[in-house]
Amino acid sequence: MELPLDPSVYRRRIEAVRARLEERGLDALYLSSPLSIFYVSGCWMAPTERPITLVVPLRREPFLMAPGLETEHAGVVAPFIADVATYFEYPDTVPPLVHMGRWMAARGLAQARIGYDAPATGVMGYRGPALADVLPGAQFVPAGDLIAGLRLVKQPEEIAYFRESARWGVRAQALLQESLRENEFETVLSMEVSMRVSAEMLAALGPAYAWILGFGHGPAFAIFRGGVDTSFPHPLAFARRLQRGDGCVTGCGAKIGGYNTELERTMFFGEPSREQVRYFELMRVLQEQALGFFAPGRTARDVETDVRRLAEEAGVTKLLRHHTGHGIGLEIHEAPFIDLGDETELQPGMLFSCEPGLYVPGLGGFRHSDTVLITAKGCEVLTRAAPKDLASVVVNP
Amino acid sequence: MELPLDPSVYRRRIEAVRARLEERGLDALYLSSPLSIFYVSGCWMAPTERPITLVVPLRREPFLMAPGLETEHAGVVAPFIADVATYFEYPDTVPPLVHMGRWMAARGLAQARIGYDAPATGVMGYRGPALADVLPGAQFVPAGDLIAGLRLVKQPEEIAYFRESARWGVRAQALLQESLRENEFETVLSMEVSMRVSAEMLAALGPAYAWILGFGHGPAFAIFRGGVDTSFPHPLAFARRLQRGDGCVTGCGAKIGGYNTELERTMFFGEPSREQVRYFELMRVLQEQALGFFAPGRTARDVETDVRRLAEEAGVTKLLRHHTGHGIGLEIHEAPFIDLGDETELQPGMLFSCEPGLYVPGLGGFRHSDTVLITAKGCEVLTRAAPKDLASVVVNP
Repeated sequence: MELPLDPSVYRRRIEAVRARLEERGLDALYLSSPLSIFYVSGCWMAPTERPITLVVPLRREPFLMAPGLETEHAGVVAPFIADVATYFEYPDTVPPLVHMGRWMAARGLAQARIGYDAPATGVMGYRGPALADVLPGAQFVPAGDLIAGLRLVKQPEEIAYFRESARWGVRAQALLQESLRENEFETVLSMEVSMRVSAEMLAALGPAYAWILGFGHGPAFAIFRGGVDTSFPHPLAFARRLQRGDGCVTGCGAKIGGYNTELERTMFFGEPSREQVRYFELMRVLQEQALGFFAPGRTARDVETDVRRLAEEAGVTKLLRHHTGHGIGLEIHEAPFIDLGDETELQPGMLFSCEPGLYVPGLGGFRHSDTVLITAKGCEVLTRAAPKDLASVVVNP
Repeated sequence: MELPLDPSVYRRRIEAVRARLEERGLDALYLSSPLSIFYVSGCWMAPTERPITLVVPLRREPFLMAPGLETEHAGVVAPFIADVATYFEYPDTVPPLVHMGRWMAARGLAQARIGYDAPATGVMGYRGPALADVLPGAQFVPAGDLIAGLRLVKQPEEIAYFRESARWGVRAQALLQESLRENEFETVLSMEVSMRVSAEMLAALGPAYAWILGFGHGPAFAIFRGGVDTSFPHPLAFARRLQRGDGCVTGCGAKIGGYNTELERTMFFGEPSREQVRYFELMRVLQEQALGFFAPGRTARDVETDVRRLAEEAGVTKLLRHHTGHGIGLEIHEAPFIDLGDETELQPGMLFSCEPGLYVPGLGGFRHSDTVLITAKGCEVLTRAAPKDLASVVVNP
């Protein structure tokens, strides 16, 4: 696995953008979403108050517009973009978008028909002229769906990242189960295991793993929450200490090339009660059957409908608190959603979480989540190697 | 320090919102930004694809609209909001905003004049009707500046959080300097120290510290980058190992009640070279003098102008890559900015970073950053306790 990706990958993605520009009668695509810029060009710069944009014209090379603090850095993080222009700072005396307007005009876009991904530029309180103000002769067309559409079906180079990510998620889950200590803060146990797995991962992947860790946090993570508050699907992380008898819900993974898989397991610190075992087994059967519903040609709604039917048959409909899953990609939650309201047809190369959880007020939450890759014939569970039967998830203090 | 805050704090904030609604002739404020909701009500729910909104009417109690997975959780995370309505899921067969429109109409807002903070709802690929579609008789007015305006000047309860945050940032910086090991991954050292400081902090603050850690990561952090790539102000985090002779730039802090301070130090692992010492001292003098420029009644532009003049006199203007600082609050970067283009007058209770850095290609970056609180007479450096003279930041391997 080489990081960063080969230039040919980005050339292919840029050609795919151009094909869609042509279909829509657009002369260029203006991107200000950091993830869209990363997807198309491999360029990642820390998002701050300073606008960063990539423009992909139909008939000339892409160009990047960035703040002055990225001037020398651009050669490192945007090696496949030859044309980079920088302004000193935001807000500064000339607003960044005024510079951008001039740079776009100088590249033949003053009268162009330009698709854009988002109305805003900059992520932290940008104020200043809008895109339409700086190029009054151009026409602007919303095109937020263009890159989202390309990102739906993952390419082989992305799937390689997911496989590597899943491998480290499985390791993180195993190490987490080995590392639990009674009365220790849950958050501290999470940080400790995240550090140890990150260290193993960096040592194993070596210098090839050179790209896009988050700033500050490590590449691998092993988080969990324990106790009755797991009956909330998204509990706040309080300063809680692990107790004997806790049911816990974990989230283990690693960021590889910008991609995370999702691996969640319900585990028990000490012997679970009969009630805990009962809901655990109901959840486990439901989740295992749900995995069988993912196949190409079916819609997201079909899968959700099947899961709801099973839940109804098992008498647990009232314990559901969310849809069965979400798309996974550069964002850990992204469209499509495995939901009654999503008619997207599943296609080979799409990835989803599968996590029909049961939430029992006063007792706890019961949720296993796996990352599912749709294949030509059905699906592959990338996180399958993390065991999920009861005996495997009971940790003896 | 009690967490969560006393209900009276939120009542005051809601009254402040209402006063501004009245000034603007608005009947209600519709908030979909998680931080704005948190500021006004103390409610924090993990942002996902599911829209969460708080409406503050002029003449009735605020109400919260949230997804079904927060139904039981709402009582814990939104204790000061009595009126909570939940929809099952997004996308579902009825879009969440359709429910919201009905709930707003049922609360007398069908024909209202409503300010809103952001056009989008939900942070991960929400698609569906817009606000104006679901309440066609209402009038919608952009009011993104309303909460931002309230957040500019920090209240005593917020300043107490910043002080506590700064205390743990100082501890993190000290422990980081004690913990450096040659040839260890920078990221692993960061994670290790972040974990240790988080553990100390949770033990010291105890159960009172019950509110809003991030999901997964701990409350305290101690990050750094070393080597010549620190000449990029925002370097990507590669899989780099610490080496003898490295100049490093750190970032240490802790999240308290949703607030981080900013504390950055340039430190050396082993004796610095004469070149390193030269730029370090130029930066240190510049940063110390810059701290003296912060005072009420001066504008952000005044401060930046003074810093630029000093840099010019010292012959280092070409080594600057960004403005002197940024506002600090619920976002770690937020307006105002200490910049030539920002004419905001500094007022007691505002907080800024002060970080005029020097970036020397091929050698490294030199940046100390402190968190500055504007006071009635001048300013107070909340992170002053972290030493910044050369002898204090040289770590012997």
